[in-house]
Amino acid sequence: MVYQLERGIMRQVPEVALPIVLDRTAGGSLPNQIAESIRHLTASGVLRAGEPVPSSRALARHLGVSRGTVIVAYDQLLAEGWLVAIAGSATSINPQLPRAWAAPPAVSARGASRPQEVPRIDLRPGRPLQDEVAGPSWRAAWRVAAAAPVGVSVPLLGWPGLRAAVVEHLRRLRGFNCEPDRVAVTAGGREGLSLLLHASGAKDVGVEDPGFPSLRRVLHRRNAIIRSLPTDDQGLVTTKLPETEPPEAVIVTPAHQYPFGGTLHIDRRLALLEWARRHGVLVIEDDYDSELRYASEPLPALASLDADQVALLGTFSKTLTPALATGFVVLPRHLVAAVEAVRGDLGQPVSLVTQRAVAEYLASGGLARHTQRMRRVYRRRRNQVVAALAGLTGVRVSPMDGGLHAVVQFDRDERSVIDALRMQGLAVASLGEYWASEPPGSQRGFVFGFGGVSDADLAEGLATIRATLGGRPSTIGRPASPHRAPGAAPDQPS
Amino acid sequence: MVYQLERGIMRQVPEVALPIVLDRTAGGSLPNQIAESIRHLTASGVLRAGEPVPSSRALARHLGVSRGTVIVAYDQLLAEGWLVAIAGSATSINPQLPRAWAAPPAVSARGASRPQEVPRIDLRPGRPLQDEVAGPSWRAAWRVAAAAPVGVSVPLLGWPGLRAAVVEHLRRLRGFNCEPDRVAVTAGGREGLSLLLHASGAKDVGVEDPGFPSLRRVLHRRNAIIRSLPTDDQGLVTTKLPETEPPEAVIVTPAHQYPFGGTLHIDRRLALLEWARRHGVLVIEDDYDSELRYASEPLPALASLDADQVALLGTFSKTLTPALATGFVVLPRHLVAAVEAVRGDLGQPVSLVTQRAVAEYLASGGLARHTQRMRRVYRRRRNQVVAALAGLTGVRVSPMDGGLHAVVQFDRDERSVIDALRMQGLAVASLGEYWASEPPGSQRGFVFGFGGVSDADLAEGLATIRATLGGRPSTIGRPASPHRAPGAAPDQPS
Repeated sequence: MVYQLERGIMRQVPEVALPIVLDRTAGGSLPNQIAESIRHLTASGVLRAGEPVPSSRALARHLGVSRGTVIVAYDQLLAEGWLVAIAGSATSINPQLPRAWAAPPAVSARGASRPQEVPRIDLRPGRPLQDEVAGPSWRAAWRVAAAAPVGVSVPLLGWPGLRAAVVEHLRRLRGFNCEPDRVAVTAGGREGLSLLLHASGAKDVGVEDPGFPSLRRVLHRRNAIIRSLPTDDQGLVTTKLPETEPPEAVIVTPAHQYPFGGTLHIDRRLALLEWARRHGVLVIEDDYDSELRYASEPLPALASLDADQVALLGTFSKTLTPALATGFVVLPRHLVAAVEAVRGDLGQPVSLVTQRAVAEYLASGGLARHTQRMRRVYRRRRNQVVAALAGLTGVRVSPMDGGLHAVVQFDRDERSVIDALRMQGLAVASLGEYWASEPPGSQRGFVFGFGGVSDADLAEGLATIRATLGGRPSTIGRPASPHRAPGAAPDQPS
Repeated sequence: MVYQLERGIMRQVPEVALPIVLDRTAGGSLPNQIAESIRHLTASGVLRAGEPVPSSRALARHLGVSRGTVIVAYDQLLAEGWLVAIAGSATSINPQLPRAWAAPPAVSARGASRPQEVPRIDLRPGRPLQDEVAGPSWRAAWRVAAAAPVGVSVPLLGWPGLRAAVVEHLRRLRGFNCEPDRVAVTAGGREGLSLLLHASGAKDVGVEDPGFPSLRRVLHRRNAIIRSLPTDDQGLVTTKLPETEPPEAVIVTPAHQYPFGGTLHIDRRLALLEWARRHGVLVIEDDYDSELRYASEPLPALASLDADQVALLGTFSKTLTPALATGFVVLPRHLVAAVEAVRGDLGQPVSLVTQRAVAEYLASGGLARHTQRMRRVYRRRRNQVVAALAGLTGVRVSPMDGGLHAVVQFDRDERSVIDALRMQGLAVASLGEYWASEPPGSQRGFVFGFGGVSDADLAEGLATIRATLGGRPSTIGRPASPHRAPGAAPDQPS
């Protein structure tokens, strides 16, 4: 796909600012200098073939010369063929000049410098269904936001209307009641993590293993030391948290351990918080998809148990669209001033219009209605995944409970299966990449999302996966945790 | 000002997700567990006084229990007074429960944690007049943007439509023709600088002295070594650029040296580029206000002279509003892949809707028309500043040529003058803060902006400044450069 500006910009822009600089002390008459400048601007592509030049009167005023001076220059250029004058139209750059100068270079849809492979069916996890986002509530929210004045003073943590709406959102959807002064607006989950690391100064960070590769990349970019924290079927193994030289921060997914979906039980939650308090560790709760749970209610947020030690990382990327680039952080009290200082120095990345629009969309109930619709879609699709991939021998298919992705495990070579899918136009994520450390030998497979594609593409993708993985009957159930020895657990493929 | 959600959210949100978790293995009947959960949720503020609870049917389905179980729990709570049932209405939390639980905490407009002083008249520099931004073209641009689908694939450097519009904008307003594949969308000037430093890995950065304090704060935040580069009336003194151990990058304002307004002449531009090529230094051209020049045409961008060594940092903060949090960078060719990699890991901070809206606003000519209106306002205001502050003895008032701010210099104690203005509700910026190193002794004064306030506030602010600085006649002219010995230059105040 090639994008081009489709509007007749020239007609609508009231004045051309030609970067012509006259030097009255230099050799060369003023008309000659003007003519030479216009030749140069045309040859270098600043003025384009067919484009009108300013009237002699306008250019004369602009340059502070007499109109006659400009007329002499234009006559010279007309004689040379650089300009053409057509009766009834403005004098223009000769439209017959080489077309190489005329058209602006096009931007390829995915950037020309490093062509990215565009899969035909993109089943990489983490993308929600976005087809129904831009509906009437969405458009109304932006309309309200665009009509509001822009020159208002906005607090460093974000527009108060959005922060209040986030508090209400968390109260209703997560049963978590927090103070709006602890809520900071972010440009999404990764930006929120970056902000927390910056403000806290944490450089030594524990992550669940396996866990989100995208958050680990943020840590790499901040030159943090990354420490693997072991997990099992119930999420983080809190008995294995380091008691000597603990990290400065840990990133955890208590609601839905990623990618295996375990929920951190209340005793482990309390143990984690007790450990964090004892060592002064910042707990970063990545609450990436709790609002979308369609199978069971998530446990209350960890952040609701401790306002001093836990930061909750929220995003609208999963509930709405990653293209919104908006999220929030509920800050532990001691970090509020430091986050304000970072924002004061580096700026708020989310535009005020966007903040107002999201606030309006939340307050009008638009997000809640959209979320309800999406829960129904995802529940149906999860059943579709289970049905489509049933009966494959040696293959374990584990659609996450209430989530948007499924883990597929097998005992073949991971790379060759993923490559085979890619050759058929299907993109999935390697299971091995979810480990910060070396993945256990039994962990071979891939993760695929069933949220971000059309019904037709999902059906085709599932058929392709089924055909690629072959015909032996599979087991459907909980994913095999790396902590169970292969073959030892009853639900492990043999 | 206190913000509160003004809408009746409850009526519009279709379903309450009560975070109730039943434990069938624990002691306590299921109705008792439900009742205890609702008491706890009410006491902790998750459920609010007067708020309806789900119907017994809905909650039963939600919890997977019989409807009778919920009715028993509700009857218990009705008997205890936690719930009230009014004929014709939904069963609700008792509205007479202590009001302390009922109202969400309010957000103060400027953040309660660290109250910021709000000046009555904010003349700190760097803010444009924003009253007329949210006009019909602006609203139309957002309407178009909000109606577009969100689930599209966007290149890492930004939406191609905006990048093409930026190319056209630079071509017409700056006479600079660049390839759209070198344009990256940013969340503003500071985010763009941060992105460039991150992608280039530059940790040792030269800055003009004096120069923008806000860009220096970005360098501090990235733990960069900051090196002062001397300037004079014509901007950066290129003969003093370090030949041994040069910095990895330099930030320059060739169009309009900040805050004194000098323009870097063509011989210095060429010398700077020659030096940068010789040492492999990245030149970051901060083109912060060229589009607004109303007095004379800016020289062509430095970036137009070298596509390999220069990055141009652009922003819509000055032409439109800082609240848009949108800008762009024209990248030197060798940095394109590295910037894509940073965006791939950390995400694009500017929402797709914002990118589309800005593109539409540019392509429709809205920005060009707004810029023209603002140029007229600023030209008039500059004259107003000159007239209002004429005739003050021992005071030099130097409104920047074509800019939005003026430098006021005097030989009194800088702090006491600025404090006196602050006591009268007027915020200005200390001239001393523009130096990365110790400012020369002669540099006492303040910088004030005349863009971001109303006509009435500007008039009052100027009267206050005049009254505070006293009655001796002043000189109006070019600011006194630190490179001229006090009293030695003919235009220096005695």
